[in-house]
Amino acid sequence: MDNRFYDVIHRRRDVRGQFTGAPIPDRVLHRVLSAAHAAPSVGLSQPWDFIVVRDDAVRAAFHEHVTAERETFAATLDAAAAERFARIKIEGVLESTLSIVVTYDPGRGAPAVLGRHAIADTGLYSVCLAIQNLWLAATAEGLGVGWVSFYREPFVAGLLGVPAGIRPVAWLCVGPVTHLEAAPDLERHGWRHRRPLRKAVHHDRW
Amino acid sequence: MDNRFYDVIHRRRDVRGQFTGAPIPDRVLHRVLSAAHAAPSVGLSQPWDFIVVRDDAVRAAFHEHVTAERETFAATLDAAAAERFARIKIEGVLESTLSIVVTYDPGRGAPAVLGRHAIADTGLYSVCLAIQNLWLAATAEGLGVGWVSFYREPFVAGLLGVPAGIRPVAWLCVGPVTHLEAAPDLERHGWRHRRPLRKAVHHDRW
Repeated sequence: MDNRFYDVIHRRRDVRGQFTGAPIPDRVLHRVLSAAHAAPSVGLSQPWDFIVVRDDAVRAAFHEHVTAERETFAATLDAAAAERFARIKIEGVLESTLSIVVTYDPGRGAPAVLGRHAIADTGLYSVCLAIQNLWLAATAEGLGVGWVSFYREPFVAGLLGVPAGIRPVAWLCVGPVTHLEAAPDLERHGWRHRRPLRKAVHHDRW
Repeated sequence: MDNRFYDVIHRRRDVRGQFTGAPIPDRVLHRVLSAAHAAPSVGLSQPWDFIVVRDDAVRAAFHEHVTAERETFAATLDAAAAERFARIKIEGVLESTLSIVVTYDPGRGAPAVLGRHAIADTGLYSVCLAIQNLWLAATAEGLGVGWVSFYREPFVAGLLGVPAGIRPVAWLCVGPVTHLEAAPDLERHGWRHRRPLRKAVHHDRW
């Protein structure tokens, strides 16, 4: 059993409020991106790309868009949920050191992507495996990562000049943090609680 | 820099041919499933479940289905690709110790899943993050994992009694292996080569 490996798995958090804005050394960023790029992919298609966003104006434009989407979601909630939601910070776009936007290119290796003929979404799944490698590597490096999903994909594609047909999958805020919380933010704020593992495990049949 | 962590990231392979069938101790399986369950999820929805399949008859039925889907894919290839594909083993369902099927329940935490209002697929993304945690933990434990995707989702749902509305996302073969190959199978067999990282990284805009 590799305690240090499991420590990374269990320490990892989805960070919103603890970014310091301190720089990330180039060699550290390279190791984190190399880890993402080492993920498995359907048919070895490696359908991901990584856009490293440091530009303040681009991040400010994204932040403004996310703020509007926050309001859209808040308007769907009942009064009690809206009150809980009001206390929850949903992104650290401006405070984090940089953002990494991860995209999916369904055309890579197409048309005969080995393993994708029966399930079109497997390409998208591969991109998510790369994202989790990135997230864990950043955690191992002492960095925080926060996945922001309060956005419309066409807005992000337009903002970053993503070519038609390529889909933004994640906007990740990345950077040094003061600390990682012991429990997820949404649990600390009473939004939802974690499910016991035993409820998620079935044997032979559901 | 945590060398042992990066060793797991870079040693991990998608295993088809090296399973020994040796048992997996319960405490090891528990650590691997706990790692999967520790993944981040949109709105803390934890929309995954894990079906641990040891039953030989169930695995044999899946293996037969996969064999038929292999033929379906082979029939779409030109002669040169078909010849390369004929040499590639695509699954180790019968030789591995057990399978873990990972599913997605879009109803968990719904309707107000925090972070899913603008992008419906974020729930599916969460399940993939859990899969990569599982894969890396298994690697850290000296186990191999092979993701089989030559199947139709309704067949797997029927075979395992997965309730309507819940989607099978991955069929993973898991177990001790003789060794992990240094390069991906598809590269060793000349199906595809890995892309240099520098081609996948962009700065500020695509």
